[in-house]
Amino acid sequence: PKNKQWRKCLSTVWGMKFTQDTKKVIHSFKVGIALVLVSLLYLLDPLFKEVGENAMWAIMTVVVVFEFYAGATLSKGINRGIGTIVGGTLGCLAALLADDAGKIGNAIIVAVSVFSFGAIATYMRMVPRIKKRYDYGVMIFILTFNLVAVSGLRADTVLKLAGQRLSTIGMGFAVCIFISLLVFPMWASDELHNNTSSKFDKLACSIEGCVDEYFGTIEMDKENQPKMKLSGCKSVLHSKSTDESLANFAKWEPWHGKFGIMYPWGKYLEIGEILRELASVLLSLKGCINSSRQPSQLSRQTIREPCEIIGLSLAWMLRELGESILKMRKSRAKVLIYPKLQSLKQDLSLPQNIKFQENEENVA
Amino acid sequence: PKNKQWRKCLSTVWGMKFTQDTKKVIHSFKVGIALVLVSLLYLLDPLFKEVGENAMWAIMTVVVVFEFYAGATLSKGINRGIGTIVGGTLGCLAALLADDAGKIGNAIIVAVSVFSFGAIATYMRMVPRIKKRYDYGVMIFILTFNLVAVSGLRADTVLKLAGQRLSTIGMGFAVCIFISLLVFPMWASDELHNNTSSKFDKLACSIEGCVDEYFGTIEMDKENQPKMKLSGCKSVLHSKSTDESLANFAKWEPWHGKFGIMYPWGKYLEIGEILRELASVLLSLKGCINSSRQPSQLSRQTIREPCEIIGLSLAWMLRELGESILKMRKSRAKVLIYPKLQSLKQDLSLPQNIKFQENEENVA
Repeated sequence: PKNKQWRKCLSTVWGMKFTQDTKKVIHSFKVGIALVLVSLLYLLDPLFKEVGENAMWAIMTVVVVFEFYAGATLSKGINRGIGTIVGGTLGCLAALLADDAGKIGNAIIVAVSVFSFGAIATYMRMVPRIKKRYDYGVMIFILTFNLVAVSGLRADTVLKLAGQRLSTIGMGFAVCIFISLLVFPMWASDELHNNTSSKFDKLACSIEGCVDEYFGTIEMDKENQPKMKLSGCKSVLHSKSTDESLANFAKWEPWHGKFGIMYPWGKYLEIGEILRELASVLLSLKGCINSSRQPSQLSRQTIREPCEIIGLSLAWMLRELGESILKMRKSRAKVLIYPKLQSLKQDLSLPQNIKFQENEENVA
Repeated sequence: PKNKQWRKCLSTVWGMKFTQDTKKVIHSFKVGIALVLVSLLYLLDPLFKEVGENAMWAIMTVVVVFEFYAGATLSKGINRGIGTIVGGTLGCLAALLADDAGKIGNAIIVAVSVFSFGAIATYMRMVPRIKKRYDYGVMIFILTFNLVAVSGLRADTVLKLAGQRLSTIGMGFAVCIFISLLVFPMWASDELHNNTSSKFDKLACSIEGCVDEYFGTIEMDKENQPKMKLSGCKSVLHSKSTDESLANFAKWEPWHGKFGIMYPWGKYLEIGEILRELASVLLSLKGCINSSRQPSQLSRQTIREPCEIIGLSLAWMLRELGESILKMRKSRAKVLIYPKLQSLKQDLSLPQNIKFQENEENVA
């Protein structure tokens, strides 16, 4: 059964890698198709007559806005749209204000407004909360404000130009949204959901690995296996930034599949935080069992059975929790896990070894 | 002395926050100035006559390329420049190739080349190694290739247009580089250097905090203090992505101050990795000492003295190491730290508590 377990752990990792690669290829194709679609604005004469050189903005929008996850595309597109509108309006006002002053006064007013809006908006970009969700929008705001304020065109020309540009940006955005959301959509929400559940599995594999390593049950390629286990543990430990950006994108994604409106994405971050703590405990446990101060292989065998029971139960519980998250069914915690934890706790109450205690506490 | 230590830890954190804020304000001012400088291309008539509407590209370059760290600005600017040149050249070739075919053949060739280059380049953007350093350059490549290939202009017109745009992009980049590198430069290298050294300090504070908490030497506002210590430890634990991006920017930065050419930035990442492991050990140690299975306060006092000696020595050693990195002097490890570690090891050889052992191993 040991070998089987290992193969299972390995195949999960490989399977994930495979689908990840396929997804990347699909995404590349999608971007290619979106680029061709938006290039039709140039290539088809009747369309080109309509939009003219402004078609450039549609291409630019597709290249810049089309991201891997649907939520990221939506967030960037909406940010770009709002940034353009707000920046254009304020820029127009600044240009109007500057228009009344003389030639030099005009230049001074424009320069001052460019400086102050640019500096304030740049500072805002560095405020963590704004940076997280609206960074791109604020950047586009600065760009549009600057271009409009500086171009010194009359209000009516600006409005016409702005209208044309906005409509082509809208076309580019529409192409992005259409392809990103309707053709093999990559949902950040799915990714976060599956990631969170697979973290449980990785930690379960790690625990099993610890037990096997300590009692020397795995003899074959010793070099290779422990590293694999450690990498699973470490990938959980360093998942914070990925999780946060996925949760951020997931919030932008519309209702789909099993995720309703107001789905509690914050909970995933909380679970991730707890699992990271468990991962850090496992990592230090690993450091501990590799210590030269551990008893010899022979004397380890005396505590082998209870340790294996505890390790396998913990791994089983983690898998059970992960699966219940994955399948979105109520965890059978009350029926299955809670009594098991109770009995484990009782077993551990005999003062044995501080090591096991750590594990148990963190799961409980 | 306990109180003093705490105040020291706190003041370090506050000091860092303060300078971080000042830096943000300075950066905002710098961006404002760069925007005004580049806007002069529009505002000053003789300059505008020279560059015309292409001045737009200079403004766009400043807004998009000017980043907080000098290294980030350089990397983005160089990426943008190379991406534009390569994309423009290939786009030109594609347009030339398509020109020979008839009207419909032209459209087909352009569409096929746009699709294939777009898809391949998008896939490349997701390869980790390219993503890390050249993501922005590849994006600009896609954009420029597409715009040039699709615009269907004759080669000579494209060359002229490309020359004008490149020169304005160059102007924008020059302004960025000038202000980013010469006016209060923010070096990612300094940041990484100081961060790495302050990590040692944070961990030292954490260790002291653990000892104080365990023996109840801090009675005042118990709610507040432990959280502070934990956050220091956690910030070290989650520093991986920040460290990696800082090291990436630092590699782009030219020789300056105390950092020579070919400075080994990779070492900082290795040190960071080890410190993160120590942080994870400390975190699980914290979970352990908060356990309900720990002995009562009274019986803890019997092991208080040796524990405090060990904790304080470890903290002192960490600070010593951090300071020697900060000041770039040879660590006095051989003279000061090594004998101390030896004696600690001897003290611990009396079978006491597995907890201390963990600590010691990770520092050694």
